[in-house]
Amino acid sequence: MVANPTELITSDKNTTVKLVKALLTQARQRNKHGQTVIEGIHLIDAALRSDYPFVQILLAESAHHHPEVQQVLTRLPTYTPILTLSDALYESIRSLGTGIDIMAVIKMPTPSLSMIHDDCLILNDVQDSGNVGTLLRTAAAVGIKNILCTSATAQAWSPKTLRAGMGAQFALNIYEGLSVQEVLDHVQTPLFATSSHTDTVIYQHDLKKPIAWIMGHEGQGVCNELMQCATPIALPQPNGQESLNVAIAGSLCLYETLRQRSYN
Amino acid sequence: MVANPTELITSDKNTTVKLVKALLTQARQRNKHGQTVIEGIHLIDAALRSDYPFVQILLAESAHHHPEVQQVLTRLPTYTPILTLSDALYESIRSLGTGIDIMAVIKMPTPSLSMIHDDCLILNDVQDSGNVGTLLRTAAAVGIKNILCTSATAQAWSPKTLRAGMGAQFALNIYEGLSVQEVLDHVQTPLFATSSHTDTVIYQHDLKKPIAWIMGHEGQGVCNELMQCATPIALPQPNGQESLNVAIAGSLCLYETLRQRSYN
Repeated sequence: MVANPTELITSDKNTTVKLVKALLTQARQRNKHGQTVIEGIHLIDAALRSDYPFVQILLAESAHHHPEVQQVLTRLPTYTPILTLSDALYESIRSLGTGIDIMAVIKMPTPSLSMIHDDCLILNDVQDSGNVGTLLRTAAAVGIKNILCTSATAQAWSPKTLRAGMGAQFALNIYEGLSVQEVLDHVQTPLFATSSHTDTVIYQHDLKKPIAWIMGHEGQGVCNELMQCATPIALPQPNGQESLNVAIAGSLCLYETLRQRSYN
Repeated sequence: MVANPTELITSDKNTTVKLVKALLTQARQRNKHGQTVIEGIHLIDAALRSDYPFVQILLAESAHHHPEVQQVLTRLPTYTPILTLSDALYESIRSLGTGIDIMAVIKMPTPSLSMIHDDCLILNDVQDSGNVGTLLRTAAAVGIKNILCTSATAQAWSPKTLRAGMGAQFALNIYEGLSVQEVLDHVQTPLFATSSHTDTVIYQHDLKKPIAWIMGHEGQGVCNELMQCATPIALPQPNGQESLNVAIAGSLCLYETLRQRSYN
């Protein structure tokens, strides 16, 4: 049974519309309410496949009869509130470009950190939401579940990071807002970090046992406190160029780990 | 000797200011004039290190006495025109966020394509400038010089792509606006492309001889015409997630090629 949308909302004074707009644009509002917004069919589909609960759905009037929207609506629990917005109002709040105009408000999970004895990825103040999302996407692809983010890392559940992550967030345990000390206290596996101060390249390291990869700030790299506890590895750059983008560097590390374990 | 800036420009009616604004924002204007703009100390430094000629330099008034700017100015050929803009005017045209306010107009190179017998990277309608820039950065890092871009690929010399490439453009031969047929006619090395329709993972392929890697459109992948001529390879995704971001996929392919040749 397809859940039934409510009446048409046309005013930007509507309480829900105001809340959604705030959630889409302000990290502070997302933290205050413990909620975020996923935009577009693709992310909603990813959330549904992970049985992730929705607070509510917002639809543009003209999107309502789109076959993919109808298909999504049949998969929702029937009690999910669905709001229909006039096209103009929807367009005024969305943060994505044109597409199928559907979004969902969801709760941001706040898992509590326990001891980590398995592979994990530590994001140490990675600033750019695109980089964070891309790293989450690669981590999900290779099957690394635990992601630990120090406090200045871009929010993993922001609309931009969700978009770059393409739904990877729903497959991961993401611990945010951690201090460096909390990371060190909980991660029991050996730490590895890329560094330009070593000549030992990644391919010369044995990565077969569980490890914690640390990726750092785009400009400053991994902080000293973490670096001192980590094995430094080099990603070779025979042409002597600039260091690699952090999402690229991280993905190369995660995939070399996978290769050594499964294809060596 | 430090080149001498001209008098202060405060009007957005100034011909050069109007041109630079157009070059920063419109691909059509860049193509028409055969020029583009590089913003920030980092890119200007990269261009200087590659002996890349400048058409002119634009500076914000307050940036003039910055030590890094002074250092850059001493390295310029003395005949390089330098315009100083009022801070407000500079701020109104820049496309980067805050930083050291210096930019340079440069010619966009238009190398003519000859037969390619060596490694190369083919960008087959990769849409996003961030992805194109990141792929160029990785190609430069591993030492792949020749980049062939089909016509719908994001412009390699746009300000956004230059920013993502971090100066890699200056180390590469980038052929833009090619038809698929031109690519096929000129590339003499075997073509390889990632595909979700094969089970043979990249680690099972021998990548030691020169090859041409093809990376495709973010949504549609590599076009049929190129795919039919290519060996399909899989990037393993044990967790069965979404396909990887194209910049990640491409970087993994380029680095696996490097690994097999230098670290096997």
